[in-house]
Amino acid sequence: MAQEELFVGAALQGWKQVVERVDKVFAGFSDEDLQREVAPGRNRVYYLLGHLTAVHDHLLAILRLGERRYAELDTQFIKTPDRKFEGKEPSAAELRKAWSDANERLAAAFATLKPAEWLERHASVSEEDFAKEPHRHRLSVLLSRTSHAASHGGQVNLASSR
Amino acid sequence: MAQEELFVGAALQGWKQVVERVDKVFAGFSDEDLQREVAPGRNRVYYLLGHLTAVHDHLLAILRLGERRYAELDTQFIKTPDRKFEGKEPSAAELRKAWSDANERLAAAFATLKPAEWLERHASVSEEDFAKEPHRHRLSVLLSRTSHAASHGGQVNLASSR
Repeated sequence: MAQEELFVGAALQGWKQVVERVDKVFAGFSDEDLQREVAPGRNRVYYLLGHLTAVHDHLLAILRLGERRYAELDTQFIKTPDRKFEGKEPSAAELRKAWSDANERLAAAFATLKPAEWLERHASVSEEDFAKEPHRHRLSVLLSRTSHAASHGGQVNLASSR
Repeated sequence: MAQEELFVGAALQGWKQVVERVDKVFAGFSDEDLQREVAPGRNRVYYLLGHLTAVHDHLLAILRLGERRYAELDTQFIKTPDRKFEGKEPSAAELRKAWSDANERLAAAFATLKPAEWLERHASVSEEDFAKEPHRHRLSVLLSRTSHAASHGGQVNLASSR
């Protein structure tokens, strides 16, 4: 196997493992239990499900791999802290569906990229800046979002029943 | 910059960011506050500091980059759940020192590796198995430990003062 495939394969495997682990934890919560806080006064699991869904949905666009579908989640789950949003909240079922959909679309898009394409710029950097800062490529965003999901996944774990 | 340097550079940057972030969170706790639990009935921050120190110290050996120094931490912080260890616990100061030392030794060792050397086998896989499973390389362990640190870092965050 070519070196670049081993490098990219490791990053993709890392993403997949984290997303699958977090997905399994979310799936272990009933809709009612999603309302639990991960620690007293901290985010509800429901909020973190919405937050990760919004971030993963956005990731598709940041990687220039497609149009996002759930931009309406940003206001509640990225721009507003938990319990401060005053609009209509999506149901747990709606969030679960969007979460799965976003991750499936990412997986399908990742499968189409050749290793060298992971080193192309992400959407938040201009072509001019990218010429000077070649490390601002898609792969760096993927790794950053992997750690992001792992971090919140660790928190959600705390609210699981033992 | 050569492709393989961009791939490895991204993984190393991801590790560095997570470790620095977690380090900063630990540094924000007084020795007394390290005794806080991340959530009711869950691990103390002190335990997670010991746990991450033991895992990072071990990482040096798994990557075949040196001898570990704090193997005695494994019994308390890897093999035994929090509060069940009956021997003498290290002080917070001792743990903090070992934590910094382990991470500094890793950073120094990482700086010596060429990109292709990240695709060499890690110590937990035999040469025979590695010939059949070339994805079991050092880089895959680094990415896995990055997510591990991010996951516990997210938990420790919950015990920080707001």
